[in-house]
Amino acid sequence: MKIREMHITPIAAVDPPLLNAAGLHAPYALRIIIELITDGNVSGLSEIPGSEKIRKHLEESREEIIGKDPFNLTSIFRSLERKFAAIDTNQRGEQSWDQRILVHIFSAVEVACLDIIGKETGRGISDLLGGTVREQIPFSAYLFFKHKGAGGELGFDIDPSASGWAAARQAPALDVKGIIAQAKAMCEEFGFQSVKLKGGVFAPEVEVECLKALHNEFGNRIPLRFDPNGVWSVETAIRYGKEMEGILDYYEDPVRSQEAMSIVRKAVDIPVATNMCTTSFSDIPGSIRIGSEDIILSDHHFWGGLRASMHLERICSTFGRKLSMHSNSHLGISLAAMLHLGAVLSELPYAFDTHYPWQKEEVIKGGKFRFEDGFISVPKGPGLGVELDREALAELHNNYNRCGLTHRDDEIEMQKVEPGWKFELTRW
Amino acid sequence: MKIREMHITPIAAVDPPLLNAAGLHAPYALRIIIELITDGNVSGLSEIPGSEKIRKHLEESREEIIGKDPFNLTSIFRSLERKFAAIDTNQRGEQSWDQRILVHIFSAVEVACLDIIGKETGRGISDLLGGTVREQIPFSAYLFFKHKGAGGELGFDIDPSASGWAAARQAPALDVKGIIAQAKAMCEEFGFQSVKLKGGVFAPEVEVECLKALHNEFGNRIPLRFDPNGVWSVETAIRYGKEMEGILDYYEDPVRSQEAMSIVRKAVDIPVATNMCTTSFSDIPGSIRIGSEDIILSDHHFWGGLRASMHLERICSTFGRKLSMHSNSHLGISLAAMLHLGAVLSELPYAFDTHYPWQKEEVIKGGKFRFEDGFISVPKGPGLGVELDREALAELHNNYNRCGLTHRDDEIEMQKVEPGWKFELTRW
Repeated sequence: MKIREMHITPIAAVDPPLLNAAGLHAPYALRIIIELITDGNVSGLSEIPGSEKIRKHLEESREEIIGKDPFNLTSIFRSLERKFAAIDTNQRGEQSWDQRILVHIFSAVEVACLDIIGKETGRGISDLLGGTVREQIPFSAYLFFKHKGAGGELGFDIDPSASGWAAARQAPALDVKGIIAQAKAMCEEFGFQSVKLKGGVFAPEVEVECLKALHNEFGNRIPLRFDPNGVWSVETAIRYGKEMEGILDYYEDPVRSQEAMSIVRKAVDIPVATNMCTTSFSDIPGSIRIGSEDIILSDHHFWGGLRASMHLERICSTFGRKLSMHSNSHLGISLAAMLHLGAVLSELPYAFDTHYPWQKEEVIKGGKFRFEDGFISVPKGPGLGVELDREALAELHNNYNRCGLTHRDDEIEMQKVEPGWKFELTRW
Repeated sequence: MKIREMHITPIAAVDPPLLNAAGLHAPYALRIIIELITDGNVSGLSEIPGSEKIRKHLEESREEIIGKDPFNLTSIFRSLERKFAAIDTNQRGEQSWDQRILVHIFSAVEVACLDIIGKETGRGISDLLGGTVREQIPFSAYLFFKHKGAGGELGFDIDPSASGWAAARQAPALDVKGIIAQAKAMCEEFGFQSVKLKGGVFAPEVEVECLKALHNEFGNRIPLRFDPNGVWSVETAIRYGKEMEGILDYYEDPVRSQEAMSIVRKAVDIPVATNMCTTSFSDIPGSIRIGSEDIILSDHHFWGGLRASMHLERICSTFGRKLSMHSNSHLGISLAAMLHLGAVLSELPYAFDTHYPWQKEEVIKGGKFRFEDGFISVPKGPGLGVELDREALAELHNNYNRCGLTHRDDEIEMQKVEPGWKFELTRW
């Protein structure tokens, strides 16, 4: 069996104006859909975060992929590693999203190859990785401060015919009241049993007030997580962290760097989580040496695939860390991969993150995955268990061509709303 | 697909009177052959170290295995873990071989299930684990001090018709001359390009003299390893270690405990290897914290299977450790599993250990694997790529019934030669 074709399709999915420490989400979130096709006409899919840079590198990777056996993933990884060694600095960048090359490209190839292997063998990817342990995966509500607006062509406008969550999705959330309304609408629609607030947007006292209000609203029934994306100082993180003891389930990247995290972790009695300070296998020794976090929020796009995520789970269990999962804006192919990983991990101590409710569009047949009581069922079919909707793909690719975005830059989007706004490594 | 039958066959394979720190090898080495058969009549094989204790626990494991899907390995592991939690002390014991229950039993189940999955999917186990990186696996000569004798029914007698390696295999090796002769015969027969001496038998000066003589004989062309199985004191290990700087490729378990290993490692300029001090995932944090070794000698029977060994490789590469492989006396089914693991590991910095040349018998069709220049080719067929020779199995099972051994006890065997001999944790 050999990979005969590789199709790389950049797409743009409507995304509302969500605020975060890096600025503001653009009206579209960029993704890339990869389709590998074997000489036996079996197709494998994957989805990764999109940028022109990654698309170009994917194009350049064809020679390492075409003609290869999809089972031969270690060899493909090594040839990609050699290819990108000189230009991949292993620096993830200062934002909450990861900008490394090799991990993204290999995760694209690995997931698509596992999809092919699953189809060839009639088994789901979770079975290929060690066997399904659970069939429903719990997710957490992901609350954002946001401007009024629906994203996409509407931008800061809304579709006035929307109701329920569709309306709440467009509503502004710039204060306690807005966040509580968002949380209630989201939990009512999707049944989430835990809640995360993306912070790092407003002054700490405002965000902490929101968390206290959420705790008042939901009580201990709904675990709360909070993520200021590293823009707080150690002093701020400790001061406000102490205020949130007994309220937060975990405290995600309050500060930047493993050293700073370990200081906050010692000072504050809340488990500390990261997807910004310990983000690659080369970060693990430092994490272990200084004890920088309790929970690693993995992401198969950033850790180099699903098998690498399984290795990460073993590292976490070996060193007394917990594992859960990070998310960026994504569609159903990435979600399917996350579900299969969730199905096979030995333990799921924390519901996974997902931006999925914020997306309206889909690229898979049958439309969006459905939440039930905050859980999504692992797809039953072979491989990923999802099929590409080629019409939807064409439409999302049209979005991409029309929107003119080439990479994620939340600072520029923010400047459209607040001229002169600048990203700051440590804002408070 | 479900597992319908589980056949557990204890066997005994002829083993010569090899000396080691724990005493003397009995005339037979005990193994257990496991065969799982699915409802579709697909058979999966595995082989693990044998003892009545492990055989009994395997029998008791039937209810966790029969009726299960062979893909569902994580679930099977968890149910076995629950089953044995109360009685498995996670203590490997004081000898060079591991006496834990869960890791053995799960490795038996996992390898047999992967054999089934490979046959169902038409792929070798290495492909199921990530894809073949290399097709020949390098092994090291494994030299032993030994008494005259062939083992088995001959015991300390020999078969006088033997010639070449078969004759050398029976010859005594109780001094420098004997070891050099053994090394030359073994390397000539099998083409090994590295050599390990099992020590901890004679006084350190005698064993070090052997290593110096081997170095004189082979020069730097043949890397030398040495394993006194932890019966040296720190002082002795440092003193003689310094004498072997420039001679040894690695220094295996000169002392017992991670703490002692880390002291020797700092004092002696030779990479330090272990299969006695860091032997499970729960030992890894201590190993990393104090820097107890450079090389972990894995063994899928002791680390809980092949996927666990892949996790161990990632842990090693994450923390700058090297990985190679330990062996006890074994036959071709264990060897096939080792070969598939060797085929898929990212790096093989050191040739694997194997006792295989010391065994005459086989339990697989086609007889013993052949070495070429010290390498063995990974079997090409699906799954493990080996088939059970049922006549040979019956004969080896007869050996087992006749020999009366129920577990490995090198001390008792040694006392037959040296009455009153006692195993000592630290002998020199």
